[in-house]
Amino acid sequence: MDINYPDIIKDIKPKKWEKKEVEELSSHLINVINDIASKKNIDAEAVLVGSVAKDTWLSGNADVDIFIKFPLKTSESYLKEKGLYLGSECMRKMGGSTEYRYASHPYVTGLIKTFEIDFVPCYDIRNTKKIKSAVDRTIPHTEYVKNNLIPGKADEVLLLKKFMDNINAYGSEFKVGGFAGYLCELLIIHYGTFLNVLKYAADEWKPGYQIDMENYGTANLFTEPLIVVDPVDPHRNVAAALSLQTLSEFVVASRNYLENPSTTYFYDKEIQANQDEVKKEFEERGTKTLILHFRAPDIPADALYPQIKKTANSIVSVVERSGFKTWGSDYWTDEKDEIIILLEFEIWKLPQVKKHHGPPVWSKEHGANFQEKYGKKVWIEGDQWVVDVDREYTEVDDLLKAVLSMEKFGLLKFGKHIKGSILNWYELMDVKEFLAHNKVEEGVLEFLYKYLHKNLNLWG
Amino acid sequence: MDINYPDIIKDIKPKKWEKKEVEELSSHLINVINDIASKKNIDAEAVLVGSVAKDTWLSGNADVDIFIKFPLKTSESYLKEKGLYLGSECMRKMGGSTEYRYASHPYVTGLIKTFEIDFVPCYDIRNTKKIKSAVDRTIPHTEYVKNNLIPGKADEVLLLKKFMDNINAYGSEFKVGGFAGYLCELLIIHYGTFLNVLKYAADEWKPGYQIDMENYGTANLFTEPLIVVDPVDPHRNVAAALSLQTLSEFVVASRNYLENPSTTYFYDKEIQANQDEVKKEFEERGTKTLILHFRAPDIPADALYPQIKKTANSIVSVVERSGFKTWGSDYWTDEKDEIIILLEFEIWKLPQVKKHHGPPVWSKEHGANFQEKYGKKVWIEGDQWVVDVDREYTEVDDLLKAVLSMEKFGLLKFGKHIKGSILNWYELMDVKEFLAHNKVEEGVLEFLYKYLHKNLNLWG
Repeated sequence: MDINYPDIIKDIKPKKWEKKEVEELSSHLINVINDIASKKNIDAEAVLVGSVAKDTWLSGNADVDIFIKFPLKTSESYLKEKGLYLGSECMRKMGGSTEYRYASHPYVTGLIKTFEIDFVPCYDIRNTKKIKSAVDRTIPHTEYVKNNLIPGKADEVLLLKKFMDNINAYGSEFKVGGFAGYLCELLIIHYGTFLNVLKYAADEWKPGYQIDMENYGTANLFTEPLIVVDPVDPHRNVAAALSLQTLSEFVVASRNYLENPSTTYFYDKEIQANQDEVKKEFEERGTKTLILHFRAPDIPADALYPQIKKTANSIVSVVERSGFKTWGSDYWTDEKDEIIILLEFEIWKLPQVKKHHGPPVWSKEHGANFQEKYGKKVWIEGDQWVVDVDREYTEVDDLLKAVLSMEKFGLLKFGKHIKGSILNWYELMDVKEFLAHNKVEEGVLEFLYKYLHKNLNLWG
Repeated sequence: MDINYPDIIKDIKPKKWEKKEVEELSSHLINVINDIASKKNIDAEAVLVGSVAKDTWLSGNADVDIFIKFPLKTSESYLKEKGLYLGSECMRKMGGSTEYRYASHPYVTGLIKTFEIDFVPCYDIRNTKKIKSAVDRTIPHTEYVKNNLIPGKADEVLLLKKFMDNINAYGSEFKVGGFAGYLCELLIIHYGTFLNVLKYAADEWKPGYQIDMENYGTANLFTEPLIVVDPVDPHRNVAAALSLQTLSEFVVASRNYLENPSTTYFYDKEIQANQDEVKKEFEERGTKTLILHFRAPDIPADALYPQIKKTANSIVSVVERSGFKTWGSDYWTDEKDEIIILLEFEIWKLPQVKKHHGPPVWSKEHGANFQEKYGKKVWIEGDQWVVDVDREYTEVDDLLKAVLSMEKFGLLKFGKHIKGSILNWYELMDVKEFLAHNKVEEGVLEFLYKYLHKNLNLWG
């Protein structure tokens, strides 16, 4: 297929009116903040950062990021107090809804019209060695891109971002483990064009691949799958959050696109998940799939996902140590109320009798202890002591119910907020039952559909 | 328990009348052979060998082994022809039944009254370097024991043999993988007494333990679990047939006996296997146990056991490669008509869907081949290609039926005589069904009982 890139760019680029609206809103917000600061005698200045500042945002996706910078000499508590005050005061004046959040740093977030606005207090650093928190890098990042992205190349960034978004590789949040916007911009600065990024990814990238645009020589410090030394901080890998899975999927999608280009890679996929069909697909696999459903604790998404992952991994590890075998597992949350951990089993039922292996027979002392403990029923396999014991749980459901209750709670490693939530309430059911009863909400259905169709990330 | 050894020895030693009968029979047979040889002008001489010659046989267990030795210059074909002729002619004259057999060497075997008689043609060697076949060592072995076993120590040999027999460790045949009679005699010559053998086994033996009575310095040539350099042949390990399993069991039984001596170690165990109870025990384990039953091909026991073992191991390996998991396996034969292979499964049912792993995604070429082969349904796990495929057999029964028929025969490695037998007829059934229908014969029931009670070999 011959791809008409100008047409695509026209579709994904913010419309003139859209741009005007965002720019006017941004300027206005900055003026409001700076006004309040001046009136209240606060030594701080608001600046626009992020994709809006860099002109690399996708139509319909404007995140207005306003950083409120304080002089380096400011105390942390003052910065926090006054920064949050300025943000919330501005939102109050604008009539938007306000929420306090904590990532690596506290910030204020709110909604004005359809725009998500973030106000983030930070230090005004000129030298990255002075960095006190990850957010302090954002201003230098914005400056670097503004200074190095050749005019006109912003369109290439948009193509790359949209392509990545389409294959679920865009975003450095824990949920995605993908490419941050800043990383996309650096890749275009480095490789020149969208197609060139894909070509290098398709042909050259492999785990440990290094890009060091400013020749700092620090790339060997990093061990992540892809290494892109931050042009404004030699000791940071911009691709640190990128998982091996997402890197692999992007590489393969790049090959697939180059082999057979299609405009579908730039337009949102319609996922047509039908509840009955999803149920039928699970049935046909012949595996057993359990849905563990519980309430989301009230913590930010960035903190929530790692806790869910830790809990899911620990469940998998506990059931596999007991002899069961998972086929796969995944999790979903609306980041607000509900969490679902999906566990698909290849082996979910085991015999009553279980071999318990003891020491080799050659140590008289260890053998005597084993014999004393288990009595006359011990036997020998090769030269190792063995005893047949009764399995505590022959069905994985029973094991799970035990480890999710006070009874065996100690076996599981939870994210700490999740522990309380599960002890309070959960339900565990077979996916077929889960899908048979009520109408499942769209997000959950799409999650189940994607679990069954793991190839979706490789194609446009 | 205080053990009254003289009482035990009285019970296990051949009675006076028994000894007289065997000695008279042996002398008579030797005379008959030598007479025929002389008359037919065959340059050969019969000699009594084995435990009867060495006076180390257990009451009720007289194996009359008569070797017919030929001068070294004799051709192999002449030795074979005339040797078998002398043996069978002697049996004919004595009115016994005759059968030709082939171990490492052809020989004649027969039954006179209750005694099993073997006539084995061999070379008259004085120097073991001249050995042409394993049987040629028998005469030097007999001589060595006669010359080195101090009078009165034969009783110690009897205690050791009976103890070993009781824990199923006596006999170097493939079926047992245990201690040969000659090895028992050497151990008494070396360690002096029955109790000393047990003490050294209990405290000192472990894999690689070396006994080199004549200080040949050749022990390092051998890699078997126990090494006893043959006093008449530095290049042979008398314990070569002893398996790690049987060595381990003997060591543990020795410890158990020394810890808590009991006369039960010297008297045959009554195994009270009840068909209903055996069935119930299998049921309670919650495993699935299949009985593969087929006819024994007409080959000697020494050749039969390795073929059964090879077939059983290959079945285990094929089902495990397909994702099933065995708990254990064993086999039984009456060495004449019937063979049974028992397969107990921990996992005998698997889901329809199966992960098929491909190459890592980093090789573009290999990835392209994988994609071409499996199409759009391929996906990525970490950085490895995966595709969900349908499992060919989700139940182990179906897999077994396929590999035991022409359909998938190539997958199994059979003993060659067994292959024909199974292709001709077999039955495969669940052990519960097997035990529910007809009364199972004593030998099979005992086999099943022993499979369930693997600790029997550790106790008297």
